[in-house]
Amino acid sequence: MPRYRLTIEYDGSPFVGWQRQVTGPSVQQSIEKAALAFCGETIDVRGAGRTDAGVHALGQVAHLDLEKDWPCDTVCDALNAHLRPAPIAVLDAQIVNEDFDARFSAIMRHYRYRIINRRAQLTVERHRAWRVGRPLDAEAMHEAAQRLVGSHDFTTFRAINCQAKSPVKTVKAVSVRREGEVIVLEVAARSFLHHQVRSFTGSLQLVGEGKWSVDDLQAALEAKNRKSCGPVAPADGLYLVRVDY
Amino acid sequence: MPRYRLTIEYDGSPFVGWQRQVTGPSVQQSIEKAALAFCGETIDVRGAGRTDAGVHALGQVAHLDLEKDWPCDTVCDALNAHLRPAPIAVLDAQIVNEDFDARFSAIMRHYRYRIINRRAQLTVERHRAWRVGRPLDAEAMHEAAQRLVGSHDFTTFRAINCQAKSPVKTVKAVSVRREGEVIVLEVAARSFLHHQVRSFTGSLQLVGEGKWSVDDLQAALEAKNRKSCGPVAPADGLYLVRVDY
Repeated sequence: MPRYRLTIEYDGSPFVGWQRQVTGPSVQQSIEKAALAFCGETIDVRGAGRTDAGVHALGQVAHLDLEKDWPCDTVCDALNAHLRPAPIAVLDAQIVNEDFDARFSAIMRHYRYRIINRRAQLTVERHRAWRVGRPLDAEAMHEAAQRLVGSHDFTTFRAINCQAKSPVKTVKAVSVRREGEVIVLEVAARSFLHHQVRSFTGSLQLVGEGKWSVDDLQAALEAKNRKSCGPVAPADGLYLVRVDY
Repeated sequence: MPRYRLTIEYDGSPFVGWQRQVTGPSVQQSIEKAALAFCGETIDVRGAGRTDAGVHALGQVAHLDLEKDWPCDTVCDALNAHLRPAPIAVLDAQIVNEDFDARFSAIMRHYRYRIINRRAQLTVERHRAWRVGRPLDAEAMHEAAQRLVGSHDFTTFRAINCQAKSPVKTVKAVSVRREGEVIVLEVAARSFLHHQVRSFTGSLQLVGEGKWSVDDLQAALEAKNRKSCGPVAPADGLYLVRVDY
């Protein structure tokens, strides 16, 4: 019973998120349905990151066990054939040891948040970025973001309904850079709290607008109070980029 | 009666193209409706490039005349407010001389075509690129593309229903480069024939796949026969990037 590791890309816009929910179509369920259509097996697909409704993935990782020892290319192509027309693509499939677990074996998760900094509404980038109209100072955002690096109690940047046992996480790296009208925020950590990257982004946006100083961001962190967080940035701009094992 | 020059971005997916048609919503009509809603005037918006159904623009240019002398920022913001939720954005508005004509004053138009070269279907890039499954040799495509530079009879690369008086056009520059799984084709010319860039792209794709040699492309050009053209690439990957005056 081989275990396959899948690398998955999706446009999160039409989904309730990665995880199966009764309220609408999920990415997980779509892949499970495709697997059932492909090989007749009712399987459980386990993902590395439980992305929220509207959040995208360029390199989500998941694993599944199949009865038969299919070639990896067959698994990849067959899942893709049955996934269409859903905006989900299996980019790669590899056979892994049975102790590989997409969620628990992960040692680093990389998220990207894309802001488009301009007055006019989005067109080709709609649902793929967050438009912020006021000019943002990306350098100030980058400087402030460094205060988030390290092990901290991130209660401020955690959704009220977050189910993690502890609010303490270790942020390995955060960077903010400008590429024309796009501001790209990248965050790496072994694991994240619910809404952590979107909470970081919304608060760093206040720094970028000059409403918060770098010290204000640090004070928000140290407050360990959800009420000290800036606005939570929308799902549209968030991408799960890569998972390391 | 001031004349305004607009720089316009749009996602072409939901439109029949730039130009007004009875068959569905056009970008031109959407902007004219927004102008009517903004200042009560029934105006005619003239664009630099008559993009087809599904073709996008990052920098379409158009002009319009208004009765009143509105500040440029007001024109921009008011049109955008009335354009929403259509995926059209006015990026810039400038007052220009009354002899400026978006179509006839243009001295160079720049188009980009984006191919995503991979087996798996598109997700976040759906309707924003053309997926080609077989591996493409971008260097061979670039080399072949140089044969298209200059003044030629482009009958081979012209839609049957093209309304231009002459099939002779002057291609200023063409380039093809690979950026990861994306292949970017860029073409600049004063003016283009109908489906010219998409015909170039489909034929260069044959070169990229190794089905055509560089000389085959040249022979297709010299045949001056529409039947010698490769497949016409879909609209999804085409962008009107910039217009020079």
